[in-house]
Amino acid sequence: MAETGNVAPIASLDVVDRLIAGDRRALARAITLIENGSPQARQMLARLHAHGGHAHIVGFTGSPGAGKSTLVMQLARELRRRDQRVGVIAVDPSSPFTGGAILGDRIRMQELAGDPNVFIRSMASRGSLGGLAVATRDAVRALDAAGFDTVIIETVGAGQAEVEIVRAAQTVIVVTVPGMGDDIQAIKAGILEIADIFVVNKADRPGADQTAAELRMLLSLDEHRREREWRPPILKTNATTGEGVAALADQLAKHLASLRETGALASRSGRQAQSEMLALLQQAMMERIAATIAPDEWERLVQAVVERRSDPYSTADALARRIGLVPEA
Amino acid sequence: MAETGNVAPIASLDVVDRLIAGDRRALARAITLIENGSPQARQMLARLHAHGGHAHIVGFTGSPGAGKSTLVMQLARELRRRDQRVGVIAVDPSSPFTGGAILGDRIRMQELAGDPNVFIRSMASRGSLGGLAVATRDAVRALDAAGFDTVIIETVGAGQAEVEIVRAAQTVIVVTVPGMGDDIQAIKAGILEIADIFVVNKADRPGADQTAAELRMLLSLDEHRREREWRPPILKTNATTGEGVAALADQLAKHLASLRETGALASRSGRQAQSEMLALLQQAMMERIAATIAPDEWERLVQAVVERRSDPYSTADALARRIGLVPEA
Repeated sequence: MAETGNVAPIASLDVVDRLIAGDRRALARAITLIENGSPQARQMLARLHAHGGHAHIVGFTGSPGAGKSTLVMQLARELRRRDQRVGVIAVDPSSPFTGGAILGDRIRMQELAGDPNVFIRSMASRGSLGGLAVATRDAVRALDAAGFDTVIIETVGAGQAEVEIVRAAQTVIVVTVPGMGDDIQAIKAGILEIADIFVVNKADRPGADQTAAELRMLLSLDEHRREREWRPPILKTNATTGEGVAALADQLAKHLASLRETGALASRSGRQAQSEMLALLQQAMMERIAATIAPDEWERLVQAVVERRSDPYSTADALARRIGLVPEA
Repeated sequence: MAETGNVAPIASLDVVDRLIAGDRRALARAITLIENGSPQARQMLARLHAHGGHAHIVGFTGSPGAGKSTLVMQLARELRRRDQRVGVIAVDPSSPFTGGAILGDRIRMQELAGDPNVFIRSMASRGSLGGLAVATRDAVRALDAAGFDTVIIETVGAGQAEVEIVRAAQTVIVVTVPGMGDDIQAIKAGILEIADIFVVNKADRPGADQTAAELRMLLSLDEHRREREWRPPILKTNATTGEGVAALADQLAKHLASLRETGALASRSGRQAQSEMLALLQQAMMERIAATIAPDEWERLVQAVVERRSDPYSTADALARRIGLVPEA
């Protein structure tokens, strides 16, 4: 990495040391480096990795307006009562700014913001969606290394972007509210599979039991579930009053214990490590392509495929050879 | 490609020649080779690519039950009246079998199935979702080379998988029905962006105008749209009676003309060629990894990352060197 130049490695190592020692400013600085995709971030993350692996990583997803932010705040409070250190990363893939809805909700968290054992950070999309998912995972890595017991990833909505982001979690909580039956059907495809715990929030509203029943039915129809050890519980909460939040904290602990007992935690970590290694290799390939093929030549190659003077298969074969992916005969 | 061995290239070239000459059995055989990921498929596709680029590729997505299959059948009928040759690929990413809903719907297409200028084929997920999207794109390539004027990709639902699949299309039609307001909100994220034409089907039902108005409002809120030349029309159809289907065929032609005039067709083709080349390079990288690193060593590398004895960054760096991605100093 020395070739990347212009970087004082001392500074980034310093951030790591201070972060591990519990320095909040160092942690904030580390996440900023991650968000900016700084060249310092990579060596910093390599070092941070060694210090992690202790946090329980929890993801929240669900339709906007389901009360996720309030629920996360109440859960953080409950976990503090259980003497846990809690980190929250609020991710908004729909906005390039950390403002709007999320910031408004954050104000409600002011009470927690003064607590040195709580760390809250908003992240928003600055570039690609894939970039945000990677940045979220790396921010989790920083919070994990900093010794937080539970790291919560809170997403704004329940779209494709959010599903991608909460994949970094060990326990995924899907939040819905009464009367969102159609909504459940619509989000079914992507969301249902990844849920470990369902929460029907605003359960004081009419229809909470029906929504819970609908979820139960959808779950029972999901054949993939039948082979799994863990049956996602369906909890009812009222985030405003805090009702049901202690039960949610209990289920979180129970799911983590189940992940450990069944070996699912290890296999999940293995899958994540593997996909991260492959993503990094892919990035190395993209860098090699950029270093080997000038933009105007790349453009000409694409154009030849578009105009059917060549085909993508032969072109990719030739490129693979040029970037070293095919060993010389 | 000669090294892949055991393959008689003559046979696959033969399939290509017969396919281009209009042999339906050769076309069916080619799609089977594509579905099975046969080693013959790659050289066949490289040749087919040269013969394509003439078809208008149209994708249908939308919630299950919106009447997409009936609508596709009516559209195919309308396009036949306009003397077009029509190919339909019905894709079901949720099922590993080409049966169930799609097959049931296909029965309604029997009338068209006897027409030599119509080709209908169902495809279902056999492996990964990514694999199905690639297979769909390659099946489109085969139909294009076989001289079909319009190739329709019909998906079962409107989830993440379907969005991925209809990306292969030049014109994307999103089908909804009256009273799916909540649904529209929920699918908004992924679907709205890719729609070129909206159809409110079953428009004889109450609430059709309201659904159309809701769609219009959602569109007007979409800032990305404002910069685009094409404003997606919102059409009302009744697939059972065929009402509105001629107008849909008109809009299809109009969208294609707009894509051509604005240069969007070329840039779309460029993006698709580029992403296909990158996907093929990624595949080449995966093959090189598999050829260089034995499964048990890979397993040990992943395990070391999971157990924090190493980190994904250094591991990926070392692997990039071993598979040739980093030039020797």
